[in-house]
Amino acid sequence: MSSGRIVDEAVARAAWSRLIEPGDAVAGALLATWGAVESLAWLRQVAAGDHAVGPRLWGGAALPPAQAGRLARSAARWAARLEHLDPRRELRVLERLGGTLLVPGAPGWPAALDDLGFAAPPCLWVRGSGDLEHLLGTAVAVIGARACTAYGEHVAADLAAGIASRGRTVVSGGAYGIDAVAHRAALAVDGPTVAFLACGVDRFYPAGNSRLLEGVVGSGGAVVSEVPPGSVPTRSRFLQRNRLIAAGSRATVVVEAAWRSGALSTAARAAALLRPVGAVPGPITSAASAGCHRLLRDGAAVCVTDVAEVLELCGRVGDHLPAEPSVPVSPQDGLSDEVRRTLDALPVRRLASPESVARAAGLTVAEVRAALGTLELAGLAVGGAAGWRRGNT
Amino acid sequence: MSSGRIVDEAVARAAWSRLIEPGDAVAGALLATWGAVESLAWLRQVAAGDHAVGPRLWGGAALPPAQAGRLARSAARWAARLEHLDPRRELRVLERLGGTLLVPGAPGWPAALDDLGFAAPPCLWVRGSGDLEHLLGTAVAVIGARACTAYGEHVAADLAAGIASRGRTVVSGGAYGIDAVAHRAALAVDGPTVAFLACGVDRFYPAGNSRLLEGVVGSGGAVVSEVPPGSVPTRSRFLQRNRLIAAGSRATVVVEAAWRSGALSTAARAAALLRPVGAVPGPITSAASAGCHRLLRDGAAVCVTDVAEVLELCGRVGDHLPAEPSVPVSPQDGLSDEVRRTLDALPVRRLASPESVARAAGLTVAEVRAALGTLELAGLAVGGAAGWRRGNT
Repeated sequence: MSSGRIVDEAVARAAWSRLIEPGDAVAGALLATWGAVESLAWLRQVAAGDHAVGPRLWGGAALPPAQAGRLARSAARWAARLEHLDPRRELRVLERLGGTLLVPGAPGWPAALDDLGFAAPPCLWVRGSGDLEHLLGTAVAVIGARACTAYGEHVAADLAAGIASRGRTVVSGGAYGIDAVAHRAALAVDGPTVAFLACGVDRFYPAGNSRLLEGVVGSGGAVVSEVPPGSVPTRSRFLQRNRLIAAGSRATVVVEAAWRSGALSTAARAAALLRPVGAVPGPITSAASAGCHRLLRDGAAVCVTDVAEVLELCGRVGDHLPAEPSVPVSPQDGLSDEVRRTLDALPVRRLASPESVARAAGLTVAEVRAALGTLELAGLAVGGAAGWRRGNT
Repeated sequence: MSSGRIVDEAVARAAWSRLIEPGDAVAGALLATWGAVESLAWLRQVAAGDHAVGPRLWGGAALPPAQAGRLARSAARWAARLEHLDPRRELRVLERLGGTLLVPGAPGWPAALDDLGFAAPPCLWVRGSGDLEHLLGTAVAVIGARACTAYGEHVAADLAAGIASRGRTVVSGGAYGIDAVAHRAALAVDGPTVAFLACGVDRFYPAGNSRLLEGVVGSGGAVVSEVPPGSVPTRSRFLQRNRLIAAGSRATVVVEAAWRSGALSTAARAAALLRPVGAVPGPITSAASAGCHRLLRDGAAVCVTDVAEVLELCGRVGDHLPAEPSVPVSPQDGLSDEVRRTLDALPVRRLASPESVARAAGLTVAEVRAALGTLELAGLAVGGAAGWRRGNT
């Protein structure tokens, strides 16, 4: 393909990102089959009333009726937006913002999104680093409720800082609450972070997070959207945006989520893509943790309680195995059952004969004598001909 | 069997509960095969140096060497306690306390303990209601750390009160912390509760819970032990006691437990007996919940967050299905994707034509007209020839 054709194809993909709503798998199939330029030319002809174009595109063969009907309905939807289409203007807006348009297969395109199949976006509008392939290579999504608690903020900050300080990218949705805390914590340790938005990257949403998202752009991270500049966030765009967070990350961790929460839809998307999902438990008295507990009950997520357990989620088996919490090692650890029972039966102050210790421990005198030897070596028993008692350790 | 033989057998089982340490499966096998009276007579002969008694008991046939060696070692342990054996004195102590001795198969014996096989106790020393079969029929164990937090106390009280107020028995271990809170909460709603102790039932341990355990005895519940009056609690008796809590309950719920905690051993016993185990999550910042999170991570327990989920654990599939938390129903719930997208695209104040709504929503004009009809009926859209906007609901 000549470089001119490549530019045309990229511009046409930018146009398609305006024509469709996110997650449109019919458009995805069309573009995968005919390319964005051919598909756009076809759509313009359909919109102009040229009904012979369908068979032409399909090499003269007619589509089966169900597919033809679905394609016609989709074409009518897309055609409604042809009138104001001007991808080069939107690309100029992106250029002024210092951004990059990424298309599938081009350098920087995150191959992980290809797992979305035909529902993958036709292109990504990116501000900040354009090398999303590198940024998302070991990324972990840290997501959760807008209406989070102080506990959720604490945990999100702790996990995101731990992930980012290990050089892994923290992915989130740029929203208030857990999302903002996760981005901010990554920035605080000079770590990489990526925000996927449901609106265009020209005007950050929510406005209260503008400075934070500017910080993400300026830090070597990225703010990314599949809809072009000027697009407003809608409910369905938020839900479709969640699939980009899920697909773009090696694992997804839900820090806090109410019983019904957008974070659960991201978790479900991740699970459907066979990406590991972690959920942070919290007090059962907190409604903000009810969604996390729901994921745990349903077996849809693994319980994660620290950054090592989060990294274990996305590692190969055995990578990042979390260390057991260090607990004080007692000199009584590792004693055999008989030695342990002998120790339990030994008086603390007065002296006891091996016979009476044996009765108390439910052991034979020979077993007690052997156990007393072990305990004496460990400093746990002292004694002699007059009898035995516990040592002073 | 004559009633005299039955009494003799019960007294001999009381004797065996003094001779052995809890969980002694060799003794269990012996008693199951020959009965307690015969086995005791055999032990006395062995202790008196009559080495021909073994083959006599086994009908003249010699045991295989490994079994014979194991039996001889066990017999030597048991024989060390023959000297001070006086079961009738211990039974008189129990009688003075108004207690009951339960033996397997007799009325009131909890058949659930038979799942322990040869490790089942030879008898139970019971104060309070002697009908453990009834008390434990639908019992739930509520257990946890001695060193619990205010959160753990709150949750344990809430769960135990909920379980007991539904007529189900709350089982626990009579210890400080979660155990005490669970018993107390059951008593507070006049519900049944059973405490399994690691010491004799004549002197309650820990002493600080004496009044609480007297309350359990006086309320129609029961305080139960497998060791006779006068027995002190030892570490191994605590661990063996845990198997009675696990086996005696339909399900076991761990409210709070540190990374290493006796409550986890009870949970492991319950799982080994194929009894359901629940774990209550808590803040990941709380060491008192680390053991619960460990159970959840290992898949050894189900996440439980309220009493309905606890009851679901021990019910048949579909029984006690917890209701979904009631969340406010929005008039926007249940809308189809197209209707929802049309609503999202409708301006709040100014009027928009169906054509412009279609462009914004990514739908055809015909789809938008149909959706506007649905929304108008629901009061979510108002409009006419001049255009459409959102309704005021």
